[in-house]
Amino acid sequence: MKKIPEPTIDRLSIYLRCLSTLEKEGVETISSQELAARFNLHSAQIRKDLAQFGEFGVRGTGYHVKRLRSCIERILGLDVPRNIGVIGAGNLGRAIADYEGFLETNFTVAALFDNDPAKIGLKTKLGVQIYDVTDLKQVIKDKSLDIIVLALPATVAQQVLDQVVEAGIKAVLSFAPTQLNVPEDVKLKVVDLTVSLDTLSQSLVAHRLEENLLVTDLDP
Amino acid sequence: MKKIPEPTIDRLSIYLRCLSTLEKEGVETISSQELAARFNLHSAQIRKDLAQFGEFGVRGTGYHVKRLRSCIERILGLDVPRNIGVIGAGNLGRAIADYEGFLETNFTVAALFDNDPAKIGLKTKLGVQIYDVTDLKQVIKDKSLDIIVLALPATVAQQVLDQVVEAGIKAVLSFAPTQLNVPEDVKLKVVDLTVSLDTLSQSLVAHRLEENLLVTDLDP
Repeated sequence: MKKIPEPTIDRLSIYLRCLSTLEKEGVETISSQELAARFNLHSAQIRKDLAQFGEFGVRGTGYHVKRLRSCIERILGLDVPRNIGVIGAGNLGRAIADYEGFLETNFTVAALFDNDPAKIGLKTKLGVQIYDVTDLKQVIKDKSLDIIVLALPATVAQQVLDQVVEAGIKAVLSFAPTQLNVPEDVKLKVVDLTVSLDTLSQSLVAHRLEENLLVTDLDP
Repeated sequence: MKKIPEPTIDRLSIYLRCLSTLEKEGVETISSQELAARFNLHSAQIRKDLAQFGEFGVRGTGYHVKRLRSCIERILGLDVPRNIGVIGAGNLGRAIADYEGFLETNFTVAALFDNDPAKIGLKTKLGVQIYDVTDLKQVIKDKSLDIIVLALPATVAQQVLDQVVEAGIKAVLSFAPTQLNVPEDVKLKVVDLTVSLDTLSQSLVAHRLEENLLVTDLDP
């Protein structure tokens, strides 16, 4: 089992959510075509993605929903619980700590950190405790945190990230709108809201152009 | 100008942030190698991405920072202002409304929506007004909203999305952890926190395996 390309992981992750939904509905088997139609996916892509990891489908029957779900979970390392620490107890940090999408996963937000004395010691709506960020190293150890999420202003992100790396964390998700540096053995994933919106902005440009082209095409 | 593949748009968007940083620092020209080294990017990828849109580099000098920035902005449709409406004034919605990453862009969060009477009429820290979601159609028109961001529970996301589509919106960013359906002419981008964490989880598996493999390799 080697490192899987990120776009493939993202798709496996989406298949996983779909399979969980189907399992809850009592669906036992599903073909790649049905899976694609039901969740707006591409059936050829599904078959290609899954074929990399072995033979999952049965000719004429399709995939066994429950079995496939647990295989993907193992591939993604989601069969073991992961404890998450979130640094920054502002709106974003608290939104992540109480994110409903984690409820049915093995991800648990086990600690929230801040440097504001007025916030330290409080709990979020769902009961996640806010710790002093100066106790970071100790809490990472005590709570067995695997993944750190940065929900911080860009100006302090690198400085806090350095402390996180020094504490031995190997996986970081950052929401700070800035480029960050980590050593080679640390995986950093940056979610930049502006980048997501740029895609939408470009689609609006393409949209306008298509409409114009359509008008031109119809012109005699 | 056609629709550009999403991974390319994401990278162009990252180059844009980097070029803005360089411009602020007074850097006038930069080679693809320097750009790559400075921001942890790949120089061959930069050259390939940019070559699709014309000749930007000058042999021996590299890219003209300011000129390249404004070209990428045009390609992404970021040279015109975009008004964003955020639906859901919980922690996440308020975090997005006040997101510092928008400050230096043409994106403006012009309205926040909720159905909670206790929230309607209030403003966020940065002054974004919270409107009644039942006035969605009117506010989209009055505020010329181009893009809608869904910061809602999964259970109500599709229902609200249908209203958004009916109001004529062509670009939607969703944070709801669920699969959603839109007509073909509407661009939907889903940011699923769990998917981002899955990548990190898989990297932890790969990490552990690499360490084990290393040990095996060293074994006589």
